[in-house]
Amino acid sequence: MSDLSVPPAVTGPTPATASSHRYPRPHLSRLGLGPGKMTRLKRLLYAHGPGGGTLLVLPIDQGLEHGPIDFFPNPDSLDPQYQYDLAREGNFSAIALHIGLAEKYFHEYAGDVPLILKLNGKTTIPSDTQAFSPLTGTVEDAVRLGADAVGYTVYVGSPAQDRDFLQFLEVRQAAQRLGMPVIVWAYPRGEAVGKKGGKESLYAVDYAARVAHELGADVVKLNYPVSSEKDADSPAPYNSLRLSPMEAFRKVVQSAGRSLVLVSGGEKIGDDEMMRKVRASMDAGATGIIFGRNMWQRPKADALRLTREVHAIFREYAQSP
Amino acid sequence: MSDLSVPPAVTGPTPATASSHRYPRPHLSRLGLGPGKMTRLKRLLYAHGPGGGTLLVLPIDQGLEHGPIDFFPNPDSLDPQYQYDLAREGNFSAIALHIGLAEKYFHEYAGDVPLILKLNGKTTIPSDTQAFSPLTGTVEDAVRLGADAVGYTVYVGSPAQDRDFLQFLEVRQAAQRLGMPVIVWAYPRGEAVGKKGGKESLYAVDYAARVAHELGADVVKLNYPVSSEKDADSPAPYNSLRLSPMEAFRKVVQSAGRSLVLVSGGEKIGDDEMMRKVRASMDAGATGIIFGRNMWQRPKADALRLTREVHAIFREYAQSP
Amino acid sequence: MSDLSVPPAVTGPTPATASSHRYPRPHLSRLGLGPGKMTRLKRLLYAHGPGGGTLLVLPIDQGLEHGPIDFFPNPDSLDPQYQYDLAREGNFSAIALHIGLAEKYFHEYAGDVPLILKLNGKTTIPSDTQAFSPLTGTVEDAVRLGADAVGYTVYVGSPAQDRDFLQFLEVRQAAQRLGMPVIVWAYPRGEAVGKKGGKESLYAVDYAARVAHELGADVVKLNYPVSSEKDADSPAPYNSLRLSPMEAFRKVVQSAGRSLVLVSGGEKIGDDEMMRKVRASMDAGATGIIFGRNMWQRPKADALRLTREVHAIFREYAQSP
Amino acid sequence: MSDLSVPPAVTGPTPATASSHRYPRPHLSRLGLGPGKMTRLKRLLYAHGPGGGTLLVLPIDQGLEHGPIDFFPNPDSLDPQYQYDLAREGNFSAIALHIGLAEKYFHEYAGDVPLILKLNGKTTIPSDTQAFSPLTGTVEDAVRLGADAVGYTVYVGSPAQDRDFLQFLEVRQAAQRLGMPVIVWAYPRGEAVGKKGGKESLYAVDYAARVAHELGADVVKLNYPVSSEKDADSPAPYNSLRLSPMEAFRKVVQSAGRSLVLVSGGEKIGDDEMMRKVRASMDAGATGIIFGRNMWQRPKADALRLTREVHAIFREYAQSP
Amino acid sequence: MSDLSVPPAVTGPTPATASSHRYPRPHLSRLGLGPGKMTRLKRLLYAHGPGGGTLLVLPIDQGLEHGPIDFFPNPDSLDPQYQYDLAREGNFSAIALHIGLAEKYFHEYAGDVPLILKLNGKTTIPSDTQAFSPLTGTVEDAVRLGADAVGYTVYVGSPAQDRDFLQFLEVRQAAQRLGMPVIVWAYPRGEAVGKKGGKESLYAVDYAARVAHELGADVVKLNYPVSSEKDADSPAPYNSLRLSPMEAFRKVVQSAGRSLVLVSGGEKIGDDEMMRKVRASMDAGATGIIFGRNMWQRPKADALRLTREVHAIFREYAQSP
Repeated sequence: MSDLSVPPAVTGPTPATASSHRYPRPHLSRLGLGPGKMTRLKRLLYAHGPGGGTLLVLPIDQGLEHGPIDFFPNPDSLDPQYQYDLAREGNFSAIALHIGLAEKYFHEYAGDVPLILKLNGKTTIPSDTQAFSPLTGTVEDAVRLGADAVGYTVYVGSPAQDRDFLQFLEVRQAAQRLGMPVIVWAYPRGEAVGKKGGKESLYAVDYAARVAHELGADVVKLNYPVSSEKDADSPAPYNSLRLSPMEAFRKVVQSAGRSLVLVSGGEKIGDDEMMRKVRASMDAGATGIIFGRNMWQRPKADALRLTREVHAIFREYAQSP
Repeated sequence: MSDLSVPPAVTGPTPATASSHRYPRPHLSRLGLGPGKMTRLKRLLYAHGPGGGTLLVLPIDQGLEHGPIDFFPNPDSLDPQYQYDLAREGNFSAIALHIGLAEKYFHEYAGDVPLILKLNGKTTIPSDTQAFSPLTGTVEDAVRLGADAVGYTVYVGSPAQDRDFLQFLEVRQAAQRLGMPVIVWAYPRGEAVGKKGGKESLYAVDYAARVAHELGADVVKLNYPVSSEKDADSPAPYNSLRLSPMEAFRKVVQSAGRSLVLVSGGEKIGDDEMMRKVRASMDAGATGIIFGRNMWQRPKADALRLTREVHAIFREYAQSP
Repeated sequence: MSDLSVPPAVTGPTPATASSHRYPRPHLSRLGLGPGKMTRLKRLLYAHGPGGGTLLVLPIDQGLEHGPIDFFPNPDSLDPQYQYDLAREGNFSAIALHIGLAEKYFHEYAGDVPLILKLNGKTTIPSDTQAFSPLTGTVEDAVRLGADAVGYTVYVGSPAQDRDFLQFLEVRQAAQRLGMPVIVWAYPRGEAVGKKGGKESLYAVDYAARVAHELGADVVKLNYPVSSEKDADSPAPYNSLRLSPMEAFRKVVQSAGRSLVLVSGGEKIGDDEMMRKVRASMDAGATGIIFGRNMWQRPKADALRLTREVHAIFREYAQSP
Repeated sequence: MSDLSVPPAVTGPTPATASSHRYPRPHLSRLGLGPGKMTRLKRLLYAHGPGGGTLLVLPIDQGLEHGPIDFFPNPDSLDPQYQYDLAREGNFSAIALHIGLAEKYFHEYAGDVPLILKLNGKTTIPSDTQAFSPLTGTVEDAVRLGADAVGYTVYVGSPAQDRDFLQFLEVRQAAQRLGMPVIVWAYPRGEAVGKKGGKESLYAVDYAARVAHELGADVVKLNYPVSSEKDADSPAPYNSLRLSPMEAFRKVVQSAGRSLVLVSGGEKIGDDEMMRKVRASMDAGATGIIFGRNMWQRPKADALRLTREVHAIFREYAQSP
Repeated sequence: MSDLSVPPAVTGPTPATASSHRYPRPHLSRLGLGPGKMTRLKRLLYAHGPGGGTLLVLPIDQGLEHGPIDFFPNPDSLDPQYQYDLAREGNFSAIALHIGLAEKYFHEYAGDVPLILKLNGKTTIPSDTQAFSPLTGTVEDAVRLGADAVGYTVYVGSPAQDRDFLQFLEVRQAAQRLGMPVIVWAYPRGEAVGKKGGKESLYAVDYAARVAHELGADVVKLNYPVSSEKDADSPAPYNSLRLSPMEAFRKVVQSAGRSLVLVSGGEKIGDDEMMRKVRASMDAGATGIIFGRNMWQRPKADALRLTREVHAIFREYAQSP
């Protein structure tokens, strides 16, 4: 859809090598951040990881969300130390995990690996029709641990959205009060989503991006929308849009407004596809990536090699603060 | 229904050019407002926007309520800066939006565009049968941001009205304590409404206006009732009333008592119809309009031209404070 | 039913003209009231309205409970000023209404018309099977406004009675702490009531009177029980009782114990029937009446004439404090 | 000082018989009162006592403030019932006393005699050099008892003013929140006052009136300033002012701004002098008098006779609400 | 002292007509203000009063601080309406006063005259050796009243500074939480100040400016330092500094850092001297003036004429936001 207009986004200095296909990302100075959020975000965006205003996050909450099932492809990954070591050796911007993995391991990496404390989660065992992710930690826990951000999953479109919004309200207000950046895992979910094109549809992902933005996310973690036959169930005009994956993702990034976008890795993919996704994400205006299984389901040497490649790519997108 | 009696309303000085068809609107001095609510309402009604005791509000909560779907007719409108710029350039009385759009953008418009912080919202994805709109922000957020009013959606007639009323009670009391005006989005909704003529019926809109008034709204946002075959399902005498649209809306304004009335724009309509609606609303005793899609789904030049027309019309209805 | 035992009631000095058919009403001095409740009840019973220990209350909560539908018979009544003026001109003991009508109008009647703040309410739109009436205000609101009593609807027999009792507990305790009299609207309601004779049956009304009394009502608003074929569904011996309407109501008054009884007017009835009901209520030991639609659905002159008649009747039942 | 200018005061309708020497008093409608304060003040000013917007208050806090010593001139007055009976029989606007006399006696006068709960007090036994009057009750106590106002003593000029102001802040805010009028006993006191002309000097009384006004008194109880040789110690120009007692008191009333003024009786004086003081007070713009010892140190018959005279005088100063 | 280095100050666009003697004032955009403080300060600096980023404040707290003694030169000024009218007619940026004058009068000026609620105060009667100014209101009061800033007096150097700092901490935090600008009246005071050159010395005023800045003042109200023989008691090098009044004040402004400076008027001075002071203040980098006695001790016509002159001068110093 070449006529998908792309309004000039809020941005800082354009990187010197910007091609015509690169959309700028929101610049920290325009986000209305208080000093605490600014300090912590700058630490993630400039002082650790690839820097230059980019984010490379290693999530390890799959043990709660999916169960140990995700660790079979690489048995080493069952030990949380594995991911911590990977984050340190690969110079990630941060590691994202739940309170238990923070309490028991983080003390050995404090100062080396910035921490994003994931504040809510659930198992995959019961049905997702009324998906809701209860708190496992609080912003106060994150402060106590020395974390630099918190993560919260909003299940956009779930029939349980009332409890979800109210729970997020508490998190958002505590984070505002304590100067803690909030990263929203914005996931379409629930039976109603299923009937309107499904959780991977552009309709659903696009809506999720906007909901996270309107609810007050500083950063939003998004999946790439995936086109399928079920798109026909989406409301017009989504049911007839013909966008390239890049155009679709660009649209989602725009819907996230001045919330910085982190691209979710999802299931493990091939090396080349992964690098294309990284580059496409940054071209579309994302601020970084949050790749878990695509990192730690690989042997560590492979993961570190890929990490170095990501670093190299991100350097091309570096911005001054 | 020419015999629809119109009792003498509470009002201030009659405008010099009042025709026989103009019903007066409630005057601020009669509303029992404390000094904080008075100060803030006067700012909206006299110091910004068209003034003269009128309100011209630009809402941009549709991204949450409907999804980015509403931005397709005018892709520029996907960027919240667009609406902020429109509100500033068009000299609106205020912009109304959720916490995320306030935190990330308002700092660049502070002092220029008054803020109405919308305090609850929901997505349109799950079913509306038990419609309930959870909090996304609080009155304390509004004070902290320098807002001049808060907005709250009551889903009148929803089976979830018990939670809704209780949630509104907290908002109303905080607003009373902090001197913050409360604008109620009074929307008939839920399966029971559907069985009694539907959410656009005079029965439903009229009831919604009164509920907002009795619950303590300072201002109430109302839709024009729409007559249809489903009116037959409304309770008597609504099922047999034959009112002109103007008479029907006048009835609704009366049911809102001393709560000031804001007329909702709803879906985009033609220019002439829009201006007729503006004038009819003011003639019926409304205090102003809150037009979103009818503004920002138009190209900005068109929206600004229409805004100037609204300003001109409102000047005819100006009242001294 | 000559064997309906009438235990010697708690009472004060017998009025000079008491006939053999007059049952005494509870006397304030025997109710164990603290000084705040005593002060405020005396204000209603002696210092305003007909006095002499009687109550004549004008309720205007029907706009919330039934919708503007109730105002059609007398369009003037749509404006809350109408009821306030009627209460002042007719010298009512008090006006009873929700927070919105208190905040926006009461300041113009403060000192003239005592206020009973109704603390909970609901719309009639959703089904009544799980009837529950959420809070719209608090006892603190009532104190702040200068009200002399609060009103609370208990839906006796509703499947939602657990939430109802707990909500009432909060109200009752705040009222006790602040010396504020509590008037309970005791209404049988909900699907289970329907199966046992219905909400108007003696079984249901009698039970409701007792529930209000046992929960701590200072005053209880009751409907006249209505005999019907559905009585057969009531538990024994209610299913076989043959009581005159007067006997039935006397029984209900007795069930309310030392809670003062206010008789509900219900739907509009004829002038003569209304006056018979007033007299019968007082004969049965009621303390007064709370007639809304029977007052303000009439033209004001008619309502004022009837009010004067009620005053005259009440004088026959005057008691010294 | 005939050139003491008297700016036009805030006032309501001038009484029909106003002479050239009558200064108007502030009118309730201009005081920015919320509905609760308005309701309660109207009760004192119009519904009880002499009415017509005047106040006749009987204080009985001398047992705490001075000890039983004050009851010797009239031994009957030692029994608090005496003052309660006097207040009822003499139709006072209210009786003012501490929590103990409220708890133990007021229940027998509830509804007849409005209550002003005095919230702080002290004995006269320790030195007054650091005068401070600690709380004996709270605004919540007053609400619970059904009081219509609270009284609070501010010792203006005391070295303990910091604790005093902070204690008053709590009282003022609770009263604002609960709609309870605040009457400030504004007394110059403490060693520093003694050095600047003494507690009865115009300098001290005038300053006290203004302090009470700026701190938020709804009503202020003031003593007549008394000229003496110590005036020379007052700051200029007070040390050289030559005002008649009437001019001096008028000045004090002006300094109280829109706080209504109650004139303190002080020590017992002769009948004629007392009536001259009443009339002079009202001429100067006071709203009423608060005479204790001058009432209950007299035999009851005398006190009631004087009370009737005060009623008669006050009728000349009646204002409509 | 030509070698008094003047570092380049934080500033916005330089006014077109800036002479070499004009030092820039801090620009709002550089102050790290959250949106609420920004909104409210812009209202004072741009939307009311002279505008262009200047402040013209009328204080009327002298009745509490000094007593009615200050109103003798212009008896009309005893009535607070006088100052309110002067603020409105003279188009001041705001009026600054205590809770009592806000509660009783502001409702008639709401929307016309911005309010600065002074939160602490004391009388001048007791000795100043342990100067401490207790709270008379709170930030919540200010929000409730619709105020745009709060004022707080810090007695720099007082032996009571521990209580003062702790009290200010509460105010500053509430103000931060609610987005309310804090104006600090920074006054050197207490016996220790007296021994080090006195409260008017450069040493004392300079220190006070810095204390207010370090404690978190958004705006600081300062007096001009006055050179005297007592300077010799100040610590070195203050005891030997030879600065012109302008240089001395410039030094003080620098010590206030990014806290905006309001210049205090102090005792009444002549017209020409007053205007020279205004111009000198602005040249030194002040943001505005807060002149009380110099305004309302003059006849209103004179005050308004001088106000117009101040407006004219301020226009020369206008900055864009």
